[in-house]
Amino acid sequence: MNVKAVIWTLVILGLVGGIIAASILLTQGSKKDDNKETPQDIIYGYECKSNKCVKVLIDENNFKTAVSQSVCNLFCEEEPNAIGTLWPKPTGKTTIGNTMVHIDPKKIEIHGYRHEYYNIAKERFMRQIAAKFTDDADIINKDGKSFSVNVVTEEGDDVQKLTLETDESYKLTINDNEAYIKANSFYGARHGLETLAQLIVYDDIRRELQVVGKAEINDAPVYKHRGIMLDTSRNYYSVEAIKKIIDTMGSVKLNTFHWHITDTHSFPFEMKSQPELYKKGAYTSKKIYTHKAIGELVKYGRAVGVRLLPEFDQPAHIGEGWKEELLTCFKYQPWSHFCVEPPCGQVDPSQDEVYDTLEKIYSELYEAFDAPDWFHVGGDEVSVECWNTSSTLQAYMKNRGWGLTEQDFMKLWGDFQVKALERLDRITKTPEKVPVVFWTSRLTEVPYVDDYLDPKRYTIQIWTTGFDKKIEDLLERGYKLIMSNYDALYLDCGFGGWVTDGLNWCAPYIGWHKVYENNPKKIAGKYHEQVIGSEAAVWSEQIDDFTIDSRFWPRASALAERLWSDPQTSWRDAEHRMLVHRERLVENGVRAESIQPEWCRQNEGECPI
Amino acid sequence: MNVKAVIWTLVILGLVGGIIAASILLTQGSKKDDNKETPQDIIYGYECKSNKCVKVLIDENNFKTAVSQSVCNLFCEEEPNAIGTLWPKPTGKTTIGNTMVHIDPKKIEIHGYRHEYYNIAKERFMRQIAAKFTDDADIINKDGKSFSVNVVTEEGDDVQKLTLETDESYKLTINDNEAYIKANSFYGARHGLETLAQLIVYDDIRRELQVVGKAEINDAPVYKHRGIMLDTSRNYYSVEAIKKIIDTMGSVKLNTFHWHITDTHSFPFEMKSQPELYKKGAYTSKKIYTHKAIGELVKYGRAVGVRLLPEFDQPAHIGEGWKEELLTCFKYQPWSHFCVEPPCGQVDPSQDEVYDTLEKIYSELYEAFDAPDWFHVGGDEVSVECWNTSSTLQAYMKNRGWGLTEQDFMKLWGDFQVKALERLDRITKTPEKVPVVFWTSRLTEVPYVDDYLDPKRYTIQIWTTGFDKKIEDLLERGYKLIMSNYDALYLDCGFGGWVTDGLNWCAPYIGWHKVYENNPKKIAGKYHEQVIGSEAAVWSEQIDDFTIDSRFWPRASALAERLWSDPQTSWRDAEHRMLVHRERLVENGVRAESIQPEWCRQNEGECPI
Repeated sequence: MNVKAVIWTLVILGLVGGIIAASILLTQGSKKDDNKETPQDIIYGYECKSNKCVKVLIDENNFKTAVSQSVCNLFCEEEPNAIGTLWPKPTGKTTIGNTMVHIDPKKIEIHGYRHEYYNIAKERFMRQIAAKFTDDADIINKDGKSFSVNVVTEEGDDVQKLTLETDESYKLTINDNEAYIKANSFYGARHGLETLAQLIVYDDIRRELQVVGKAEINDAPVYKHRGIMLDTSRNYYSVEAIKKIIDTMGSVKLNTFHWHITDTHSFPFEMKSQPELYKKGAYTSKKIYTHKAIGELVKYGRAVGVRLLPEFDQPAHIGEGWKEELLTCFKYQPWSHFCVEPPCGQVDPSQDEVYDTLEKIYSELYEAFDAPDWFHVGGDEVSVECWNTSSTLQAYMKNRGWGLTEQDFMKLWGDFQVKALERLDRITKTPEKVPVVFWTSRLTEVPYVDDYLDPKRYTIQIWTTGFDKKIEDLLERGYKLIMSNYDALYLDCGFGGWVTDGLNWCAPYIGWHKVYENNPKKIAGKYHEQVIGSEAAVWSEQIDDFTIDSRFWPRASALAERLWSDPQTSWRDAEHRMLVHRERLVENGVRAESIQPEWCRQNEGECPI
Repeated sequence: MNVKAVIWTLVILGLVGGIIAASILLTQGSKKDDNKETPQDIIYGYECKSNKCVKVLIDENNFKTAVSQSVCNLFCEEEPNAIGTLWPKPTGKTTIGNTMVHIDPKKIEIHGYRHEYYNIAKERFMRQIAAKFTDDADIINKDGKSFSVNVVTEEGDDVQKLTLETDESYKLTINDNEAYIKANSFYGARHGLETLAQLIVYDDIRRELQVVGKAEINDAPVYKHRGIMLDTSRNYYSVEAIKKIIDTMGSVKLNTFHWHITDTHSFPFEMKSQPELYKKGAYTSKKIYTHKAIGELVKYGRAVGVRLLPEFDQPAHIGEGWKEELLTCFKYQPWSHFCVEPPCGQVDPSQDEVYDTLEKIYSELYEAFDAPDWFHVGGDEVSVECWNTSSTLQAYMKNRGWGLTEQDFMKLWGDFQVKALERLDRITKTPEKVPVVFWTSRLTEVPYVDDYLDPKRYTIQIWTTGFDKKIEDLLERGYKLIMSNYDALYLDCGFGGWVTDGLNWCAPYIGWHKVYENNPKKIAGKYHEQVIGSEAAVWSEQIDDFTIDSRFWPRASALAERLWSDPQTSWRDAEHRMLVHRERLVENGVRAESIQPEWCRQNEGECPI
């Protein structure tokens, strides 16, 4: 890479005078201090040496060559790895040139289509750019070039709904002060905008907004399903917090927000046809997700490239809000005899009213989520001991000539799945039946899985460990899989216990490295084409609005790169870029976990052992 | 306890009409919804049954008896444990009566003294009260009684500096709509205000601010030194974030903010006499603590009952900002050969200029921190391998006839301590020498400890495990101790690794239970009187402004109760109160870790196994 060319361009564009002023600050030192509370002057710059950005004191000798770290990071890499600081890294041919163009933040224009998603995408892009120089908004140099972004897609203004099958590919070209984004869909185009936003940096030495002067990026995801799951039942999250999560997903090209909206603990979903469900089932009358709020999230999600996938977990994980006569073992004590965590609760599959209620719930979720292309039907942690507490249910089983063994209860569950799915199919309005997702559970195990779950209909979400033999059993049978193996993707693990002292059940904490290295293709081996993607999950026993940012970020970003890029290199190669990425998250208002001392970011490569 | 009396008082005070309206909401259900986005009506109340607050649907039968959970929690306990939801619990005679008085938030007056700390304390109290009904500020009933708080102290307006020896005791009496706080010092009085703030609750059923109508609380701390430590060198924290930490400390009566202000990574302390230290040593020119900012924190700290204890860590943990010729092994690679984490760096004790610089640093810290009553001189993790890299230092030692064994380097270190302490003593202005704190290290071990560290001068801060034999060695020798045993009090433990993958060095995560159960008196046994207190520490390799709240809170609150109250009961007895306390933290703007599903708080006692 021609570092000299970069530097000279910068020198020409830069305000040399300003740098000189900064460079002599040290000698003036305390004098200046008397007048100023905190000196705001820059005294360090960066130089690219052996593919690393090295921190240098700016002085008379190097003031022409030192650049800000944000600029240096964009170039200081050897081909073919020169991808700047892009996260996730592109999968197609990528070239990033070695010049920077000073642009005026007030003269950025995006030319796309009239569809409202474009307006949301534009506003968001401008917000991301403005965030780069918030602290220096008053002093930024505004005399740069105008910058125009031209978006062309096949579908034009006829924007389709985002689905699992949407073509998300795009091509981004930058030529001086013009960028071109070409894509088949809006969704590809908006990914192009995300990439572009990461190629624009604020140089705090020259106080300029700069864009890479020449680039071509061809990009498309490796996996179709790139998601995170949020449980909003154990603890409630505000609609704003969820919107922020979706917004951040968009910035790393994650495309699926799986919403585990209800559970035994609370029922926060507004049910218009049966309001007692949420009126009694929500924690408080304010802790509710209305149809209107969900509809707005669905729309915002699409505008940032994220589809919302609703889960209604059943037949276990049901309780608050429901008529008690439709439930078994609800709030039974000692809970550990009947379920895995308090409170216990499952529906009683022998009662017809259960299915009527389910149909209403499906129908309203389907409506609120604007006809989602997939639906998650839960299916985890059904307890035979729970069902076996009900004499009504026992009588029902005896009447059918069944016993009360595990096998009988699995038959009961299998029948429940058939009946429940019939109800789901009644309310969906597509010619094709909606694909459903189902958690690994006793029913997904041999031999029951063969009897009750059609692999053409059910995609299985894995939450065992990544090395569990059951994964292979499912793959052999032709199931499509979504990987959420808890040992790498349950982001709530590793904190204190909550039913007793010690640590929570799935401790230890999972570092971003492990998320990054969790490779679905390796897990699935020869069946890897059956893995449609992964999800990182947050179960919310010990998390709410106030800590959710740091649980997801930047670890969900590590997942995003695994799924978009399927990197063949290790986390070590991504580490410095991750440090830069984390700061970008913070810059955009995300309270992401810090992963290293700032010293390590400023002194690239000096920290790893 | 006379629950009926409570209830009747509430009924009389309550707006019965409002409750009836709420009670019939369920039947109206969806009709009302059409006009209103989110129904804000309360449908659950609480009843005290067998010392537990039980959640009940408000209906025609119980609308006279159900109260809000905040009110129920105040009473629903059996003597002698009836302490409401106070955190930390009082240590002296405490009675909390069974009536509530409806007060008008606009008519609260605090009568104290003119000293500015009283103004800060009053403003803060009013802010805490207002936070209780933020969401209902528009609809709160304002027709309650006036409420006056009368503060009397021995010292009156002659408020002394807060020191380790300050008398923090107080007596709080509430009689209908008047409260009396009696104390020897302002600092005791302000503790009384904290307690009082916790006895005022917002009843969201009646939409009233209520205060306990009759109470007497006699209270004083068990331990003198109740602290937390923050490292602001690995990552920088904004002054506002630090102020918020100090503010929150005040709310749980923690009294010492130990500020590990510099380290090898960065030197953010403004040095007027030698500005290159911070100009070169700070991460950026904005990431600095000025004298002015520190002075304001010291003042604010005193007003909320928190003394600031500055640490200047030495002779290791020194690097950025210093002249390289005064250092040994600074930034050496591979770092693991010379120190415990990157970057390495120690001062070279053979150079006189080192002591001159130290004296300047002591002097400016002493000034900025407004003559702190104690000083922390660091002293951890000195590496013989680091010193042994310096040929200058080797020559110095040879010239004195020493070898280069560990013993020789300990002698070097011991001499450094003597010389450095002389410099500290030059700049302090008290008749008595300032007590110093020193981390456990090789020098605090037998036999070196006997040679170099005077137990009359040095208090040792323990960061070994709580069961380390070295603790007894120190106690036997008469040292006073501050317990920060890392297995219970290092709150940064249990996250991902940062020099490599896996987990950080002191994993696993420490749950609040463990902090609560970490009993210095048990650790010290017969020498327990030598333990002056404890500190929870946050080392900031992986933490900054955006995640600090959840690292400290509510775990530092668990420490606060251990140190203030020395509870003889287990964490189990404190659990429900802790859940309430965590919500109080959130209410006051602290992004504290959630520790359980909201269901567990609403269903007291139903979650523990």
